Amino acid sequence: MTDAPTTLPPALLDALSTLLGPRGLVTDPADMEPFLSDWRGLYHGASPALLRPANTAELAAAMRLLGQAGVAVVPQGGNTSMVGGAMPDESGRQVVLSLARMNRIRDIDPVDMTMVAEAGVILKNAQDAAAEAGCLFPLSLSAEGSATIGGVLATNAGGNNTVRYGNARDLLMGIEVVLPDGSVIEGLRRLRKDNTGFALRQLFAGSEGTLGIITAAVLRLFPRPRTTALALCAMADEDAALALFRRFRDRDEGSVRSFEYMSGAGMDFVTSLIEGATLPLAGRADHYVLVDLASSRPDADLRGLMEAVLEEALEAGEVLDAALPESEAQAANLWRLREEHAEAQKRAGGNVKNDVSVPVSRVPEMIRRSAEAMRALVPGCRPVPFGHMGDGNIHMNVVQPEGMEPAAFMARAHDLMEAVNAVVRDLDGSFSAEHGVGRLKTDMLADWRGGAEYEAMRRIKAALDPQGLMNPGKVFPG
Amino acid sequence: MTDAPTTLPPALLDALSTLLGPRGLVTDPADMEPFLSDWRGLYHGASPALLRPANTAELAAAMRLLGQAGVAVVPQGGNTSMVGGAMPDESGRQVVLSLARMNRIRDIDPVDMTMVAEAGVILKNAQDAAAEAGCLFPLSLSAEGSATIGGVLATNAGGNNTVRYGNARDLLMGIEVVLPDGSVIEGLRRLRKDNTGFALRQLFAGSEGTLGIITAAVLRLFPRPRTTALALCAMADEDAALALFRRFRDRDEGSVRSFEYMSGAGMDFVTSLIEGATLPLAGRADHYVLVDLASSRPDADLRGLMEAVLEEALEAGEVLDAALPESEAQAANLWRLREEHAEAQKRAGGNVKNDVSVPVSRVPEMIRRSAEAMRALVPGCRPVPFGHMGDGNIHMNVVQPEGMEPAAFMARAHDLMEAVNAVVRDLDGSFSAEHGVGRLKTDMLADWRGGAEYEAMRRIKAALDPQGLMNPGKVFPG
Repeated sequence: MTDAPTTLPPALLDALSTLLGPRGLVTDPADMEPFLSDWRGLYHGASPALLRPANTAELAAAMRLLGQAGVAVVPQGGNTSMVGGAMPDESGRQVVLSLARMNRIRDIDPVDMTMVAEAGVILKNAQDAAAEAGCLFPLSLSAEGSATIGGVLATNAGGNNTVRYGNARDLLMGIEVVLPDGSVIEGLRRLRKDNTGFALRQLFAGSEGTLGIITAAVLRLFPRPRTTALALCAMADEDAALALFRRFRDRDEGSVRSFEYMSGAGMDFVTSLIEGATLPLAGRADHYVLVDLASSRPDADLRGLMEAVLEEALEAGEVLDAALPESEAQAANLWRLREEHAEAQKRAGGNVKNDVSVPVSRVPEMIRRSAEAMRALVPGCRPVPFGHMGDGNIHMNVVQPEGMEPAAFMARAHDLMEAVNAVVRDLDGSFSAEHGVGRLKTDMLADWRGGAEYEAMRRIKAALDPQGLMNPGKVFPG
Repeated sequence: MTDAPTTLPPALLDALSTLLGPRGLVTDPADMEPFLSDWRGLYHGASPALLRPANTAELAAAMRLLGQAGVAVVPQGGNTSMVGGAMPDESGRQVVLSLARMNRIRDIDPVDMTMVAEAGVILKNAQDAAAEAGCLFPLSLSAEGSATIGGVLATNAGGNNTVRYGNARDLLMGIEVVLPDGSVIEGLRRLRKDNTGFALRQLFAGSEGTLGIITAAVLRLFPRPRTTALALCAMADEDAALALFRRFRDRDEGSVRSFEYMSGAGMDFVTSLIEGATLPLAGRADHYVLVDLASSRPDADLRGLMEAVLEEALEAGEVLDAALPESEAQAANLWRLREEHAEAQKRAGGNVKNDVSVPVSRVPEMIRRSAEAMRALVPGCRPVPFGHMGDGNIHMNVVQPEGMEPAAFMARAHDLMEAVNAVVRDLDGSFSAEHGVGRLKTDMLADWRGGAEYEAMRRIKAALDPQGLMNPGKVFPG
């Protein structure tokens, strides 16, 4: 149950209404409803108003008004956070600020290889606009049809292509940010080298809306790939999967676009629960990898490279079997086996998610030890590790034992996550590789990154947001 | 003239002496002398003591003592700053803290592709250690025989390979930092994805020692190149040089390791003033580029790629002539023509340096307009633009007119720099692409990056260094 929302002071409401107009200020509870729940169903908040500014000037003026009145602000893009990062709390006192109307792509420059996009541009639209200009914007993740540029930058989103192109932060050349007092950092520079003061853009990227609101960004584009090669491989074990990654990286580091690990258990869920998902290999294996190579060079002969490396790995006993698609449709089917992992787990019953990373060298050990720890805790549970092996980032998920009550399994969710995290911590890893801290993991941040590191973050927060009005309760406890 | 240095309070001196021992505490003025001047001869400072801690624990304890006594600290690595970034001021009150003894490479891991290096490791030694492990640490710049890992990170150094591998900040995976109060951020993580809080490592990188002292870092390594191709090309004009860059980037973005522009005037100085430097082309041109391709792929056929692209560009009238080396020695000679630019300019008489960047698309316009502006100011002066065209970073240098008194020319240095900067600013560029702000450019930072951006930097500085003891007078005015 949530408290009834408070209302904003009438003078503030009037000023916001004058500033933003009827499209920019929403106070009807029914209209606000979709903005007050996250898609995972973890949180349901309350809010006195939803602001939808049309441009940076309006947003800055609104921030000034809210700051003067001491009203807290929760920025929201596509509302696809995995950790409740865009949810207001239950107090009914936090205003939600949607960037959805600020969705212009201001500029694409194929010489500078840059795109200037406003925060509300949907990631997929940014990808499409880049493609239309003959370029590639490489950030790609499953929520790309809803997630926005502001959101992926504020959370430093990752995804499938980071092994080649890096995370969102690495794709950020310039930034426009509205600070809590309504002042605007006008840093939309498109410079590949610029050593004039602190790296503010990199600080705001990944700060999850707790320091200011990213309103626009200069994004890096790349030449579009002209040659690709894909393979699904059945692997002997986790070590063999890592060994194969090393073979590809060593041979042609620049062409490894994705290197995804999947378990036999995960693949079983996909092939049995997802319509039309079939495994194009002779038999079942306990471990799989999906290798995706790409190059802008038309004559890169990645198919030849793929076959040569796989042959070596077959001889070495690492690869047991491999399928190379002969058409776009076949390639899409292979990727689908990977992409349907989350949906298949959902259909399999109660499931618990972990978004962890470790040094690449420790991925095999992390998978084995985590799975063992989870099985010890809940006998019969089915670990389904999958994800970005080339980045050391494995979603160490687990599905309930057959026949168990989902609710009973979910009651062990916290313990299961803790079991994985204990292994990850022992291996010098991270409790949040991609999804951020949000509201869900503030305690873990304080615990894992405590001491001088946490204190430095806390001081930076206090310096840039002295009233504590920016996305309260995220990153740091509310 | 500098003031006589003050001495430290006897109790502090005793405590530091006990902590650091005779090798770690230097107070003899003669022994301190080399640490009090920068190599460009811009500044000569004074200091009551030089601290040389042997490890992080000693350094942290020293910082705590200095902080309690309110004594300011100037960190120093290889003392190769172009902007006085490692110099104490003339007050004699600032202690110099040399990282030179903290020069261990703690670890190299060819699976994680990481190196853990202490701040005092000389860049060249880091490169060599990576090479011995069969890997590449790609950061490369002319001061690499003296510059240290701490220094290149603190200044976010660039260099020749950034078009492919990025600046120092992009090569930084984890960091250990001692804060002004002696607390230690223990962030030596080797994670390619880690969204747990603010990007502190990227904030400290490029902060020029004003927020804390980087004591060690996890650096990214890469597979070593197995195939390379090099060409020196005579170009029709600046636009042709940019067009050629686009051809290579579009064809095989991942293999363009360097793309360096040089002017005819600059090449004339090199070939006439540097012994043994000869131009392996049929005739003189007004514009040159040096294209360096590299790939870890043994069968990349970069020579074929080079020839194919150059042929297209010859037909298009962009390239006038090209020399492809047939041996390592010939390749070294081509690179030498580029690397001797600074020395040749020095021998040519009075010369003024600019380290500017603009969006890549605007490099031709920047070169032409800057040269024109300088010639208008000092008729007969000889602009010698050269540098990293692929990064938009051109060293827009200028040599005195023939026969002019060097001192008379150097009296115009400030005006000449301002003339270039006016053009760069008009093109949304940077007054410091690689070298940082240091002591030399604090006024420019306040002017160019004023308003909310500067205020945010100022607040972060105050938050992390409330007493203002970290490298005072750098980045911000003293």
